[in-house]
Amino acid sequence: MTLAPDTVNHQVRLAARPSGTPGPESWDHTSEPVGEPADGRFVVHISHISLDPAMRGWMNAGRSYIAPVEIGDVMRAGAAGEIVASQHPDFPVGQHVTGTFGVQSYAESDGRGVVRVDAGVAPLSTFLGTLGMTGLTAYFGLFDVGALKDGETVVVSGAAGAVGNAVGQLAKIKGCRVIGIAGGPQKCKWLVDELGFDAAIDYREGNINKSIRAAAPDGVDVFFDNVGGEILDAGLARLRRGGRVVLCGAISQYNAEGGMTGPANYMSLLVNRARMEGFVVFDYASRYGEAVTEMAGWLAEGRLTSHDHVVRGSVADFPDTLLQLFRGENTGKLVLQIAD
Amino acid sequence: MTLAPDTVNHQVRLAARPSGTPGPESWDHTSEPVGEPADGRFVVHISHISLDPAMRGWMNAGRSYIAPVEIGDVMRAGAAGEIVASQHPDFPVGQHVTGTFGVQSYAESDGRGVVRVDAGVAPLSTFLGTLGMTGLTAYFGLFDVGALKDGETVVVSGAAGAVGNAVGQLAKIKGCRVIGIAGGPQKCKWLVDELGFDAAIDYREGNINKSIRAAAPDGVDVFFDNVGGEILDAGLARLRRGGRVVLCGAISQYNAEGGMTGPANYMSLLVNRARMEGFVVFDYASRYGEAVTEMAGWLAEGRLTSHDHVVRGSVADFPDTLLQLFRGENTGKLVLQIAD
Repeated sequence: MTLAPDTVNHQVRLAARPSGTPGPESWDHTSEPVGEPADGRFVVHISHISLDPAMRGWMNAGRSYIAPVEIGDVMRAGAAGEIVASQHPDFPVGQHVTGTFGVQSYAESDGRGVVRVDAGVAPLSTFLGTLGMTGLTAYFGLFDVGALKDGETVVVSGAAGAVGNAVGQLAKIKGCRVIGIAGGPQKCKWLVDELGFDAAIDYREGNINKSIRAAAPDGVDVFFDNVGGEILDAGLARLRRGGRVVLCGAISQYNAEGGMTGPANYMSLLVNRARMEGFVVFDYASRYGEAVTEMAGWLAEGRLTSHDHVVRGSVADFPDTLLQLFRGENTGKLVLQIAD
Repeated sequence: MTLAPDTVNHQVRLAARPSGTPGPESWDHTSEPVGEPADGRFVVHISHISLDPAMRGWMNAGRSYIAPVEIGDVMRAGAAGEIVASQHPDFPVGQHVTGTFGVQSYAESDGRGVVRVDAGVAPLSTFLGTLGMTGLTAYFGLFDVGALKDGETVVVSGAAGAVGNAVGQLAKIKGCRVIGIAGGPQKCKWLVDELGFDAAIDYREGNINKSIRAAAPDGVDVFFDNVGGEILDAGLARLRRGGRVVLCGAISQYNAEGGMTGPANYMSLLVNRARMEGFVVFDYASRYGEAVTEMAGWLAEGRLTSHDHVVRGSVADFPDTLLQLFRGENTGKLVLQIAD
């Protein structure tokens, strides 16, 4: 199989580093022809692009856990697709794969960091979600960093988001009391009625401190934070002795133009002999296999459900779709589907 | 031996909970006669009263790691003295002891929580400092919570304070590179010239972030924080991967009337897969013995020095002496000596 000679790769590139919320001026839309792969390489036709809060951090200059996306580069993104041309024996045409392919419609690769997936097991979006980086982030954050014990009380912020809903489901599998914090009554209803959370708190309604106290009267063992800001402060205030705060993200702060706001209640860590710890899922790469196997088993048993919020469009819809994430418009894993 | 019938106990009691820095209106000065102890009890003539930043927290209402001092109660304080009357077989007259005796000149006790000390080994002030709660706080905070490894880079804030200078000395014993942060050139000179710190940073001079970078170009493994505020933020910004922030105190924040300021750089914990953890030394009570034995050995070998900043006065001088602590006027362990 060869590529059609007029195959065009549409791309979204970082045009300028944003201050605050990334607007259209942050992006360039480019296109270029797709060539045949060289020996040992292959071409992926991308069908699904993952949208993640961490993307906002990748757009900033400076030291972080991963190099920033450079101005002019194709925006970094996890993506899934099908191999359409190959000179690589291990990655034949027709194989479905996931990888950090970027915001574009075609990607060339030598296979490093690329995962072969069985599209018969689950939709490709799920390999970006529960069976991909999202699920792995929930799994290692909750079980390793959070050191969750059966029956503990877990509060997760951003609970209707990709990682958040997976965290809650995993904690329920471990027999924990699970309280989700999310924005709006619909998401809260969804968490309790559909996902089996024990309680959900709408942070837009009422006093979040009082709400956590009511939902977790004996305090919080693990606070899994995707949000930061006032919600992190509220979680800190209700920690139990020996509690763990898992720092996974701070979506409320990523677009703050005045800089991050730190948690004023951090001395609760002293009072409660508690810890707050960050992690980066890439560090667990050697254990991805065990985690995916276990989560695939739970999926097959119906104990874990992948909630993929799929937006259909083209590569050019990436900038607007990313803003949906920061406006909290997604329920579950936000994925941009650009091909069937 | 019996007490002289006219023996008077002078006391400082909490009169009102302060907002901000505790002024004279926070305190009542009382006196009452000292009676003979009942069976199973004894009377201590207090000679040394410990002054600790934590005292400010004890003056606040509300949930903490220890109950607040109630209005009208004698102010809580660690203290040392000599038994002058006893109906307790294990605590004879003439025995020197330390305990939470409060800000007063005499205390009656049944022996619970009271430690017998050998005044021939070290001055009584040292049993409140390096061989008391101060040294134990440094020891368990650095070695247990901080999980210090030989040869790592340690930064300690409030380095010229009681716990801070002990932390630095303990880290030097373990072959670490030690950087102290303190206020003023004299304290900094003292840390380097007298205590053997590798570097000292005067937080009042220049840019603290740049100073830490210069002193610890490869980053910080353990940041032992007694101070909070901008200094904690600066430490967070320079953490190495896998770094540990030990939360021991936040003296810069205790008198802040607008509430605590949280560390804006807390997401450095995520970037660096680092943790921030609080502790309360009382949790290590079952291991005090091993720690004191080890530190007493280092003292005897001259590898560890106890720096006791002794202010001579009376019980009534407690309120002013406490303010010296918050103004950073002490070098080493601040102790009010009220008797020989």
